[in-house]
Amino acid sequence: MDIAGLLVTEREAMETALDEWLPAEGEYPALIHEAIRYSVLGGGKRLRPILALAAARSLGFDPDLIVRSACAIEYVHCCSLVLDDLPSMDDALMRRGRPTVHRAFGVATAVLAANALLMHAFGLIADNGESVGASGSSVAAAVRDLAMAVGSYGMVGGQHVDLESSREGRVDSGTVEYIQSRKTGALFVVAATTGGTLLGAEQSRIDGVALYARKLGLVYQIVDDILDVEGDEEVVGKDLRKDQGKLTFVALHGVDGARRMAEKLVYEARSSLASVGDDVEVLGELVDYCLERVS
Amino acid sequence: MDIAGLLVTEREAMETALDEWLPAEGEYPALIHEAIRYSVLGGGKRLRPILALAAARSLGFDPDLIVRSACAIEYVHCCSLVLDDLPSMDDALMRRGRPTVHRAFGVATAVLAANALLMHAFGLIADNGESVGASGSSVAAAVRDLAMAVGSYGMVGGQHVDLESSREGRVDSGTVEYIQSRKTGALFVVAATTGGTLLGAEQSRIDGVALYARKLGLVYQIVDDILDVEGDEEVVGKDLRKDQGKLTFVALHGVDGARRMAEKLVYEARSSLASVGDDVEVLGELVDYCLERVS
Repeated sequence: MDIAGLLVTEREAMETALDEWLPAEGEYPALIHEAIRYSVLGGGKRLRPILALAAARSLGFDPDLIVRSACAIEYVHCCSLVLDDLPSMDDALMRRGRPTVHRAFGVATAVLAANALLMHAFGLIADNGESVGASGSSVAAAVRDLAMAVGSYGMVGGQHVDLESSREGRVDSGTVEYIQSRKTGALFVVAATTGGTLLGAEQSRIDGVALYARKLGLVYQIVDDILDVEGDEEVVGKDLRKDQGKLTFVALHGVDGARRMAEKLVYEARSSLASVGDDVEVLGELVDYCLERVS
Repeated sequence: MDIAGLLVTEREAMETALDEWLPAEGEYPALIHEAIRYSVLGGGKRLRPILALAAARSLGFDPDLIVRSACAIEYVHCCSLVLDDLPSMDDALMRRGRPTVHRAFGVATAVLAANALLMHAFGLIADNGESVGASGSSVAAAVRDLAMAVGSYGMVGGQHVDLESSREGRVDSGTVEYIQSRKTGALFVVAATTGGTLLGAEQSRIDGVALYARKLGLVYQIVDDILDVEGDEEVVGKDLRKDQGKLTFVALHGVDGARRMAEKLVYEARSSLASVGDDVEVLGELVDYCLERVS
């Protein structure tokens, strides 16, 4: 399988969908929607929505049924990038080769746009649940899972502990795992499971993709940490060497140790696919791609 | 009916529920949960959840069934206060007689706590829907309504236009109505309708409480604007005279004109209750209370 080629095709399809499901350009209040569109449509690998579609296929469903949910997950990811970049957080100047949202639109608009994007995502998940005829429990589970993945036990908690431990210069492997499983892993898991939840997949198979996605998220994050040290800023398209003094897998295990850890996780991710189903080739290739990526 | 006495009783009951449905003190990450609890449990009139319970009763349901949703609405309100108070927004120092959340916990923690609170609210709405056996469409509608009330067509949009028009010194009645119907009205409407939506009330009766709540929200906001000019800072418990140069009903119509407008809205709110049902006495009294309040 040509996973690199497939990812290019899927990314292009996803760009179109991400644009279509956003509020249109010029809709009132125009500046908020401009900031939202700027934050979402500035490129990116679109791994989370591609994962969402591939996971739905692996569970035996037509991925077209959950395109809205896949977009919603990416919108949440973009929301988290806007917030992480804020002056009070990571104070980042560049993202995806362009000025960060707060530099382009101001801090107030960035905070408001991030929240609006998050709300848009919840609206789409609800809509999608209704459109596929999901039960009350299924819609509730999908909404709750996303809320948990973002909130104080998920991404928000991870970002908070990240900022706190960086300030304190604290480095231990439990904290690194806590941070990364929340900051990256939680949304990968929801990306992989939301489609199955709304479409009524068997719980054991949903659990399989959830476990796979947790491992995939860790691989992705470890490689991110390695790229921060070894990557080419031009190729990666964002500020690098920003993690110095931050709690990363590389700080803890060194580049070689981190890479070995990632390789072990790739093996575990592939193993966890056994309980998912037959059509798991893309998911298998995806985790290899995440290990070998250079940007 | 002794509405003032009833509101005291209801507020006390609500304080207990709001505490119970929050993450417990000390739960990891502790500082985020401390900031969340600080932002919610610092007093306040609790009008929105009281409205939620009264509206459920007026639609013929046991209000106990939707306490979680009522709490969720108040959590969303508290989230919006934290964000509005930020240095990049209204830059407020005091709220409910105490330092604002960003002054007590820092800007990063305030932004994260606000988002966590918002997510907690969505989780509770979903949970509540499931617990009352709501259909997929009903859960989806409740989630979508809340997301719309908060997002770029709701509170976020209102706050954005408020900041923008204040900066530009623009004053026209269309803009004031836009801002206030979004900043205050949208959440009042969702407070009034979510219970009925989850419990499967007739749409015409839900529409009745929605119309009532829209008017109530406007009355509440107009009186807020009047109190900003005429109120006693000690009694109101927040910074006053902050609205100078802001787009308010008082700026537009003067204190007397604004009060007349509020009185007309009280009449309209009461009239809209005709289509709701028989048990609407509390809702009727509530709108009078909102007109006459001094804090």
